[in-house]
Amino acid sequence: MGKTELEQRAVNTIKGLAMDAVQKANSGHPGMPMGMADIGVVLWGEFLSVDPSFPTWPDRDRFVLSNGHGSMLLYSLLHLCGFPMTLDDLRNFRQWGSPTAGHPERHPGLGIEVTTGPLGQGFGMGVGMAIAEAHLREMIGSELVDHRTYGFVSDGDLMEGISSESASLAGHLGLDRLVYFYDDNKISIDGATSKTFSEDVAARFQAMGWSTWDVDGHDREAIRQATGQALMDEERPSLLICHTHIAHGAPTKQDTAKAHGAPLGDDEVRATKVAMGWPPDETFYVPEDVAEFFRAAMDRGAKKRRAWEERLAASPAAGTWRQYFEPPPIRLATSDWGEKLATRSASGALFEQIGEKVPGFIGGAADLVESTKTELSDGGSFSKSNRSGRNIHFGIREHAMGAIVNGMAVHGGLRPYGATFFIFSDYMRPAVRLSALMEAPSIWVYTHDSVFLGEDGPTHQPIEHLASLRAMPNLWVIRPADAGETAEAWEVALNRTSGPTALLLTRQGVPVLDRPPGGLALGGYVLRPGSDVVLVATGSEVWVAVGAAEQLASEGISARVVSLPCWELFFEQSEDYRSEVLGEGIPRVSLEAAATFGWERITGVGGLNIGIDRFGASAPEAAIAEHLGFTIGQVTGEVTRFLDKHR
Amino acid sequence: MGKTELEQRAVNTIKGLAMDAVQKANSGHPGMPMGMADIGVVLWGEFLSVDPSFPTWPDRDRFVLSNGHGSMLLYSLLHLCGFPMTLDDLRNFRQWGSPTAGHPERHPGLGIEVTTGPLGQGFGMGVGMAIAEAHLREMIGSELVDHRTYGFVSDGDLMEGISSESASLAGHLGLDRLVYFYDDNKISIDGATSKTFSEDVAARFQAMGWSTWDVDGHDREAIRQATGQALMDEERPSLLICHTHIAHGAPTKQDTAKAHGAPLGDDEVRATKVAMGWPPDETFYVPEDVAEFFRAAMDRGAKKRRAWEERLAASPAAGTWRQYFEPPPIRLATSDWGEKLATRSASGALFEQIGEKVPGFIGGAADLVESTKTELSDGGSFSKSNRSGRNIHFGIREHAMGAIVNGMAVHGGLRPYGATFFIFSDYMRPAVRLSALMEAPSIWVYTHDSVFLGEDGPTHQPIEHLASLRAMPNLWVIRPADAGETAEAWEVALNRTSGPTALLLTRQGVPVLDRPPGGLALGGYVLRPGSDVVLVATGSEVWVAVGAAEQLASEGISARVVSLPCWELFFEQSEDYRSEVLGEGIPRVSLEAAATFGWERITGVGGLNIGIDRFGASAPEAAIAEHLGFTIGQVTGEVTRFLDKHR
Repeated sequence: MGKTELEQRAVNTIKGLAMDAVQKANSGHPGMPMGMADIGVVLWGEFLSVDPSFPTWPDRDRFVLSNGHGSMLLYSLLHLCGFPMTLDDLRNFRQWGSPTAGHPERHPGLGIEVTTGPLGQGFGMGVGMAIAEAHLREMIGSELVDHRTYGFVSDGDLMEGISSESASLAGHLGLDRLVYFYDDNKISIDGATSKTFSEDVAARFQAMGWSTWDVDGHDREAIRQATGQALMDEERPSLLICHTHIAHGAPTKQDTAKAHGAPLGDDEVRATKVAMGWPPDETFYVPEDVAEFFRAAMDRGAKKRRAWEERLAASPAAGTWRQYFEPPPIRLATSDWGEKLATRSASGALFEQIGEKVPGFIGGAADLVESTKTELSDGGSFSKSNRSGRNIHFGIREHAMGAIVNGMAVHGGLRPYGATFFIFSDYMRPAVRLSALMEAPSIWVYTHDSVFLGEDGPTHQPIEHLASLRAMPNLWVIRPADAGETAEAWEVALNRTSGPTALLLTRQGVPVLDRPPGGLALGGYVLRPGSDVVLVATGSEVWVAVGAAEQLASEGISARVVSLPCWELFFEQSEDYRSEVLGEGIPRVSLEAAATFGWERITGVGGLNIGIDRFGASAPEAAIAEHLGFTIGQVTGEVTRFLDKHR
Repeated sequence: MGKTELEQRAVNTIKGLAMDAVQKANSGHPGMPMGMADIGVVLWGEFLSVDPSFPTWPDRDRFVLSNGHGSMLLYSLLHLCGFPMTLDDLRNFRQWGSPTAGHPERHPGLGIEVTTGPLGQGFGMGVGMAIAEAHLREMIGSELVDHRTYGFVSDGDLMEGISSESASLAGHLGLDRLVYFYDDNKISIDGATSKTFSEDVAARFQAMGWSTWDVDGHDREAIRQATGQALMDEERPSLLICHTHIAHGAPTKQDTAKAHGAPLGDDEVRATKVAMGWPPDETFYVPEDVAEFFRAAMDRGAKKRRAWEERLAASPAAGTWRQYFEPPPIRLATSDWGEKLATRSASGALFEQIGEKVPGFIGGAADLVESTKTELSDGGSFSKSNRSGRNIHFGIREHAMGAIVNGMAVHGGLRPYGATFFIFSDYMRPAVRLSALMEAPSIWVYTHDSVFLGEDGPTHQPIEHLASLRAMPNLWVIRPADAGETAEAWEVALNRTSGPTALLLTRQGVPVLDRPPGGLALGGYVLRPGSDVVLVATGSEVWVAVGAAEQLASEGISARVVSLPCWELFFEQSEDYRSEVLGEGIPRVSLEAAATFGWERITGVGGLNIGIDRFGASAPEAAIAEHLGFTIGQVTGEVTRFLDKHR
């Protein structure tokens, strides 16, 4: 049997698996796997270097399925190639506890690099992976880092703004080792893409510095040639515009929107199998020669992996490699912070130390480097001509920044961060959520964390953002009270491996507190003892609480002050510890310059919640504090009135 | 004095006002107003038709300052043109209570059309305004609707993904009456844009179906000619790429990033004034001839406005116009809903009625029309060739959809909505926030509102989204329990004028409840009486609470069920009403298939919160309910155990 014919059987196998799994689950997306099966067979069969026996081999090529609804294409390929994904897993597509979720969920041990489904995220994460590869190759050497990033993307990916942001930056940076295959099937959920998408995609990507190719997505020879050419472009990322047919080969549903997100139906599945000369009564059919075809293809990666291991064992760069890929826990040295410092400035002052101790520390801001104080002064700028740069200029592209940081974080070897004003966390929220869902240790640095940023006004003043991030599973939200807590917060963030951390930092100066070291890691702790009332505060309101406690003391009221920089860590502590900190039977007051939503979890409904349940205002910081009731005197008064009522 | 010289004095006046206001506030962005002053003088002086004596004249041209940090340019123009914006307001730039906030805040009475500052939002809202104009012109006639939308945009706007989404759709729709001036000054906050932005903007916009012009942004004659040409293009939206110098005319700070976001300093302000032949010791200097220049320019709009009023008085289309611009309150007829219906389906079934009763009802989905059930079956598709269409195909562009709906909402005459899955509210969150901040009555339709959407899995299952929207000021979040509540929710949303409403609707069928009509408008109400325990639920968990209450009754426990579809409306009710509904001294249980964050506001810390504080899972609906504890039996058991412990 010739290669072409065998390849065709490989394509048919994938189509059969995708149809059968969707049909059995009675739910899913058969159209994309059928439309991109030819491309999948060429890419995985001839180009992608991975090793199913060692899925997490660090120098493997990365594959991103940005159009994650086509998950059955990925699962089929993983199974056929011999990754630890069984035929039973395919049979349990979309069932509780199965690794074959409706959309791929990151599982490196199975060969699933990233979680995708929310469109555009994979596009952006692939850019992050390509940046990671380029940087690590420069720092460690191409002997040990030398791989490529491939991705499948859809018209949905390309319509999403995040992909435009990511593509613009990828073109600017000349990420030549990034190759995306665009499934140009002219169909989206609501019908023909011509209803809403008439732009010239090739021209748009060329304008952003990409190489583009027009390819018949079912002509495997053409795909092979174009991929080969794309790999030879050493200047630009590549977009292969693959003209495909959704549900390719389905007699009545090919080229219809119906085939996108619903099972084809038993009759159509059968008819498709008949049309492609496939046994119509078999389900989950994998011919032995096709299995052998993929196993043979995987030898390519396995050989490369073994050679790589030999090089690692012998390489003088192995020590450098280990600094990146097997970093030790981080301890930051303490500093003398003086009397008053914005926590963004304390954070900025730590950057040199972090940069030295953590070689993989890399990142940047969305055009707010100076404001967010996130520059590695000796780090250089990552650019087309300087791959060693550790400062990435993301531009005013928060969403791409989020996805790119996630891509770097899951690539391995790096400890990436992204920075902007806290308000603009909204612009990148889907990426933040994905970092939490993927358990990626991305670090989000958000400065200008409250109305006290002042004159820029309500459009720039976060209100509901703390609550909205605290509600998100697996995200640690840390709002340090002063410089000392800021250093401890960075230490926590840098040592976290199972998920992201958001650091909320002030624009304005805040007093450096007299505090016991180490409390931040517990999430919350007693900063000042007291027995009549407990003032629980975070971030820039902690010193106000301390001031109020002092005033209350002069009125004969013993007020405890609790600093609660991280709720998630606090609720990981024992109930005993939490009771001890918050006190039992003592009235509780919360103080935070943000929406009070959620604070009853700490204070109960009988407590007093001092916060800001309105949008902010444009005015100098002091005026805002005065008008919104955040001066020490006003807080003292509020607490006194509360206690009077409470008694 | 020739026109050219007078225009130059007008430009100088704006530069002086901008420099002085920023200097006095010691905070702000002088660079952009100085760089775009020439363009502002040409546009406002010769093209823009507005009437300062009637700022809200419905047929005025719309002006959007998307690069809102340049607010002093807008404030200066408004003052000079005679809008009710005083010189004292300019002197109080960025001070508490002044209408001259750091970034423009929507205030139609002052001539501020939209709130801008978060980059890209203005770009998208302008597209919405242009759609609104095109649709209303078609429906009412060009005798009464005949205006244009102009906008100023920056490199920051163009880097944001939302602008790519919006531009792609604007090009597709051929919005020829949209003219944007791009302040191509090559400078962003972190320095030269070349650090991160090297794409060919003209080619990119041409690829998306725009006309582009390259213009010297300080050559007023060139600006005039290009604007005139742009207005003659009847096929495409226009982007005038204006090559400008940030802080134009400042001797040492022109073309520097320093001039972007900080006062120039007294010396530089003085030197700039000297260089442009301006009295160096005067501040807030407005020569009489310049004031006269702008007043004369405004006569153009005033005359048009008077003619328009005469036409309205005489027009046979006046009745139609009033149906759009002066709509009466909406009452929806009740239906027989049968026994079980997804609330998205109930919503969909209302569309025909709403479409008939509300002529301005217009909107669409982000490529999820069928899934979200948001189609006006007789409405037609809004397109380049069909401006009467009421169904807008936004494509997979949630963020643009958000901004476009906001633009339509603030344009007036329309009652727009945007629809997608609830999870993707994250993709458009900055636009949702802006609708709340601007008090724009946008309606957000979010279906597939919980893990019970099933097999699509965690990437598509909202968890923290309810909490994160409830924390946002001025957004009404409504999660109806059944078809009847859905109809009442739509009525509430359609009658709201001072802010947006989000409707959260189920994918899955839910029983139609036996409930007292009208309760939804109160935010929460007693659905079933009971005295031993109160079960408070929302949306698709209400019928589960009712089922649990029935089981508890058989165990001799009298459980009250409260439906709480809208917290915001509930907390607007009297404390007496709320106490009556929730009961006092009775244990409270919350039941909602979402993060429990925030629920202690209802239940107190001593209550029981049944929710989902983890990410979801890919599985059929029933399996998810079983595994996450949301069956009637499991809830009954939980409540029983809670009461045992509580006693």
